[in-house]
Amino acid sequence: MDITSEQDDRFMAQALALAERARWHCPPNPAVGCVIVDRPGQVIGQGQTQPVGQAHAEIMALRDAAACGHSVRGATVYVTLEPCAHQGRTGPCCEALAAAGVGRVVAALEDPNPRVAGQGIAHLRAAGVQVDVGPGAARAREINLGFFSRMARGVPWVRLKVASSLDGRTALPNGASQWITSDQAREDGHRWRARAGAVLTGIGTVLEDDPLLNVRLAQATRQPPLVIVDSRLQTPPDARLWSVPDREVVIYAAATDDERKRALEAKGAIVVVQPNAHGKVDLAGMLCDLGRREVNELHVEAGFKLNGSLLRERCVDELLIYQAPSLLGEGSGIAAIGPLTALSEGIALQWYEMAQVGTDLRLIARVSGRATF
Amino acid sequence: MDITSEQDDRFMAQALALAERARWHCPPNPAVGCVIVDRPGQVIGQGQTQPVGQAHAEIMALRDAAACGHSVRGATVYVTLEPCAHQGRTGPCCEALAAAGVGRVVAALEDPNPRVAGQGIAHLRAAGVQVDVGPGAARAREINLGFFSRMARGVPWVRLKVASSLDGRTALPNGASQWITSDQAREDGHRWRARAGAVLTGIGTVLEDDPLLNVRLAQATRQPPLVIVDSRLQTPPDARLWSVPDREVVIYAAATDDERKRALEAKGAIVVVQPNAHGKVDLAGMLCDLGRREVNELHVEAGFKLNGSLLRERCVDELLIYQAPSLLGEGSGIAAIGPLTALSEGIALQWYEMAQVGTDLRLIARVSGRATF
Repeated sequence: MDITSEQDDRFMAQALALAERARWHCPPNPAVGCVIVDRPGQVIGQGQTQPVGQAHAEIMALRDAAACGHSVRGATVYVTLEPCAHQGRTGPCCEALAAAGVGRVVAALEDPNPRVAGQGIAHLRAAGVQVDVGPGAARAREINLGFFSRMARGVPWVRLKVASSLDGRTALPNGASQWITSDQAREDGHRWRARAGAVLTGIGTVLEDDPLLNVRLAQATRQPPLVIVDSRLQTPPDARLWSVPDREVVIYAAATDDERKRALEAKGAIVVVQPNAHGKVDLAGMLCDLGRREVNELHVEAGFKLNGSLLRERCVDELLIYQAPSLLGEGSGIAAIGPLTALSEGIALQWYEMAQVGTDLRLIARVSGRATF
Repeated sequence: MDITSEQDDRFMAQALALAERARWHCPPNPAVGCVIVDRPGQVIGQGQTQPVGQAHAEIMALRDAAACGHSVRGATVYVTLEPCAHQGRTGPCCEALAAAGVGRVVAALEDPNPRVAGQGIAHLRAAGVQVDVGPGAARAREINLGFFSRMARGVPWVRLKVASSLDGRTALPNGASQWITSDQAREDGHRWRARAGAVLTGIGTVLEDDPLLNVRLAQATRQPPLVIVDSRLQTPPDARLWSVPDREVVIYAAATDDERKRALEAKGAIVVVQPNAHGKVDLAGMLCDLGRREVNELHVEAGFKLNGSLLRERCVDELLIYQAPSLLGEGSGIAAIGPLTALSEGIALQWYEMAQVGTDLRLIARVSGRATF
């Protein structure tokens, strides 16, 4: 059979849907989906990236086909990212595909990982497999925006989550903020936490709210590491956040205090001292360090002040705003920027997506003028 | 032919589309559309409400059928509001329909006007015309929400329009506010002005911005009256607002100053002195007076303070927010309410509609718990 480009798009859409389902458990690996189609055009195997250290999508799809007794000889493999060519935590997928005798591989995108970067494709072609790249590229890239960011820029995709009223208040003057938004919005927020490489907050939020910042209201196969911006190492060793089992905690400080550092390390924390010239944490340097720690998407849930610092220091890519249908008048805003003297000095964004979640709106806006990658 | 209920819905949808087009020029009359369908199911006439003092939708549709040489004898008439039964500025439509020999009238809703209120239907039935009420009722009511408000509550439907940043700022601390939103949002705002029975602002806005507050960026066959809340009659007789020709200006004051009153009346203004117990304008009383002046929809474009007073005094039904994709940090908010001490004290709203207009979002939210009518 000759597979048409329309069929390519349809099978790739199936693979992309599998990739989306993998987002919740695959960090720091990219979320990949794979669909294998035989010559008559029937899907004979499918798979998605497993938790880190386990099989990639292509291997899962090959196993799925084998388990059902299907031969993949001459089949077409749809995969949302170029099959890997290197021995990482698992063996190279391109070798497995070539060894299985597939006839054609359709990949949405080249893998931006410098250890792959076209080598998977070259290896397949050298083994006589036809390779086409392109169908579904835009959506495949969106699914792994954090992975692409880390590979191209060395830093995570930074998403700042805020719950506010229609007039931009995140808390009343007396601090009351629980809960501005609905149960459904909070659950949705936990799903975004779940897919993140790490959750970041500031010492202000730790001291004021004593939050857990783990994934509770959504299904989770892993707890994303917690990152705390804590210039003076004030995180209390008896804070509730330490009660979350099997979660890594990384604390960025601006100065060392050996006693406090030891106390936090005794709780299992990694303490990184990374000051800037003003005696605060070097936020851009912190992002580079988190990139080295393989954080693809960084989910920020911080207060007004740290939000402002991150935005002013151009460390934010995206805002995820849950906007409640209410007016609260006075209180804390979304981010401490300003006072500005001209509208052009504001943080310019572009609307990316809007949806109703429970009784609230979920608005996603991207910061304009961020370096493309 | 037997017309099915599905056909009823389809023809009523055509009549509703005509009604929507009439909204821009018909105040203070309700916007009505009418479609006449002959026995074989062909549309033979259609019409919509003309500017005040001119023909109603039914008369326009009868004339349209006659102009094309169609007989309406035995035809079905779809009309988005019960045909009027009284001699108002024009003759009663129900008599014209009965005299023309139509066989059936389908009305979306009964007219809430106490001078009609079922009498049009009764008159038609007495003349042997079949009358059915109901198809398209919800949309017909939305199209004339202001008219229904005035008939049932005696006051206009009050829509508060605001242009803000994502963090709820309407101006910077230095007052800069031109322009937070895009050209397209401003044009859209003028279309909402155009359909309003009156545009309301406060003396603060008049003194600070010296605005025209007329319809310039949208087509207009009339200029909605301008209402100014001006407790101490400070509106300058040389303000730009007086330069708009053929526009009524109504000024609500809390105290009389004979000299200033005379100066404003000399400019053509109607001055109404309506104080409350605190020496400010009695806003609820003002709405009743505007109801008596046949204002169906009141379009508010005021500042932070007057917005707050209107909201706190429960005078607002709906917010029309143009939200720019930007963060501005500090500055004026949407409305001066608070400081609150509990989230439950906020102004509770419900999202009604969201759309992208140019680069901005247009959000419509309705104030919860307003008396139903």
